Amino acid sequence: MGLPLATDAGPGPKLRGGIDLGGTKIQALVLDDGHTVLGRGRQETPREGGPEAVVAALVETMNAALKDAGAQAGELAGIGVGTPGAVDTVGGTVANARNLPDWIDPFPLAPQLSRGLADVPVRLGNDVNVAIAGEYALGAGRGHDSILGVWWGTGVGGGLVLGGEMWHGRGYAGEFGHQVIRRGGDLCGCGNRGCVEAYAGRKMMEAWVRGKKAEGHHTDLFRIMEKRGRDRLTSGVWWRAVRDEDSLALHAVERALKALGAGIASAVNLLDLPAVVIGGGMGERFFASHGAQLGQYVHENLFRAGDPPALLPTELGDDGGAIGASLLVT
Amino acid sequence: MGLPLATDAGPGPKLRGGIDLGGTKIQALVLDDGHTVLGRGRQETPREGGPEAVVAALVETMNAALKDAGAQAGELAGIGVGTPGAVDTVGGTVANARNLPDWIDPFPLAPQLSRGLADVPVRLGNDVNVAIAGEYALGAGRGHDSILGVWWGTGVGGGLVLGGEMWHGRGYAGEFGHQVIRRGGDLCGCGNRGCVEAYAGRKMMEAWVRGKKAEGHHTDLFRIMEKRGRDRLTSGVWWRAVRDEDSLALHAVERALKALGAGIASAVNLLDLPAVVIGGGMGERFFASHGAQLGQYVHENLFRAGDPPALLPTELGDDGGAIGASLLVT
Repeated sequence: MGLPLATDAGPGPKLRGGIDLGGTKIQALVLDDGHTVLGRGRQETPREGGPEAVVAALVETMNAALKDAGAQAGELAGIGVGTPGAVDTVGGTVANARNLPDWIDPFPLAPQLSRGLADVPVRLGNDVNVAIAGEYALGAGRGHDSILGVWWGTGVGGGLVLGGEMWHGRGYAGEFGHQVIRRGGDLCGCGNRGCVEAYAGRKMMEAWVRGKKAEGHHTDLFRIMEKRGRDRLTSGVWWRAVRDEDSLALHAVERALKALGAGIASAVNLLDLPAVVIGGGMGERFFASHGAQLGQYVHENLFRAGDPPALLPTELGDDGGAIGASLLVT
Repeated sequence: MGLPLATDAGPGPKLRGGIDLGGTKIQALVLDDGHTVLGRGRQETPREGGPEAVVAALVETMNAALKDAGAQAGELAGIGVGTPGAVDTVGGTVANARNLPDWIDPFPLAPQLSRGLADVPVRLGNDVNVAIAGEYALGAGRGHDSILGVWWGTGVGGGLVLGGEMWHGRGYAGEFGHQVIRRGGDLCGCGNRGCVEAYAGRKMMEAWVRGKKAEGHHTDLFRIMEKRGRDRLTSGVWWRAVRDEDSLALHAVERALKALGAGIASAVNLLDLPAVVIGGGMGERFFASHGAQLGQYVHENLFRAGDPPALLPTELGDDGGAIGASLLVT
């Protein structure tokens, strides 16, 4: 159960591919064996067309990264993919990827993607787990032997490194966003009630604010969204509305921070962890401006208030997911 | 960080002492090196007199167990004590034992107790952790490499065995009862709001029911309490009232089960554990009659509803805490 961090370079330089498959965007990187980025590709995640459309987009994005690096697919030792949903790392399938289009049944992502990219070996990992493994090995988590990663984005993901190893439980550990912080509370995307994600997931935040708008509350969120040519409230839209002190946006973000704070405190009370790394699209937008407020909401729910965990922003930034995924390549 | 389970018998038979220091009672055992109980002592925990009174009672209880076993203190290889509060295992001190009388500052429990019992070495462990280590090694947890222990009693304690080892975090892991399951909810004994313990701790359940009675709600709980010569609602009092379908008692127990269910689901969603062991005074009273209802409340908050953890009652019963404590003796 060791971290999938490949440290042996083997004979001669080898290239690695890393892909971060998110609910909003696909990011592909080509890296050398010292984890230096040589080429990048990026595009929006298809919103329809099912897993096949997603595979086609992944191939396209990786080809763009290869072109940027001046390399061929055949030069890659392997490609690691961080993906949402339930990952079967042995069979190379992904099921129940709720934030991807029509992706419920297990789909053979690894073999299909390999076929589209010169039969290069493809390894899958949970998107958030690989990003946290990346931060642990190369980013914000260095110096701590245990971390909780909280990935605040479309949903609220999470992952744990405990005593130097990624904790998988029975294979699906890390659902930080589905800790219950208000029993019987708001309906969550998972079908349960009162989860952290029901308040803090970007998708659920949008649903809440749409409800408030329908009730007659004013907000500039949707005006900003349209102005920026979006059809949903991206983290950038949220960030601009909060910067402009849109009161409904401020309220939604405060609810999210309170839910995240309670969830982080719950996990720390249970596991007594020294550090929490905050990532994800929303996390990266809001940490600088709202990290202290989040810390306050953690603090008021800590059992041992005198010894709070370090609350840290990601260091690998936008590349983190794809860099972490590239560590799957051995 | 391996489990403190002494498996090497060493030359010749050796006796071990185990003490479970609870908020309500002190239980002392003398065991042989095959974990067979040779003698027992038991008395109520002092409610006043501070740590000194507690030490005197511990000495008395262990002497009773020694007498029952026909043994002398000097024959003990060591004594393990499971205690509430913040345990410094190296210094042998205990602080902030909220369910014990006037016990806030660190008090040198191990050396003081050793002095009272023929200078036999004393090792301390967190009361719940040692009980869970006992269930893991010798009881309900056998066959699982990871368990969550939920100790439902005066408070709501907890502990984790992860991949075969007790998880201590920075030294104070396992505060299952202080996971937040209703942000901003009922005040907890810890000073925060909405913890599992605020709804499920026996002490908090009593405070809630006293409040309801003051508001004019009927309950037979206090009549049963007086009839049984108690001055607080023990788990036995709760059990009788529920058996007799006292509606306020039923309501309080349902609130407790819902809180416990949400807390267990939160921990399992985060850690993906295969098994949960339910212990503590209330847990042992109510598992047979209400375990299925608890399972239902866990289930409705599980992220992966198709793969629930096994919910198990303790197997070592009333002796579990003291047996687990005896495993501290190496």
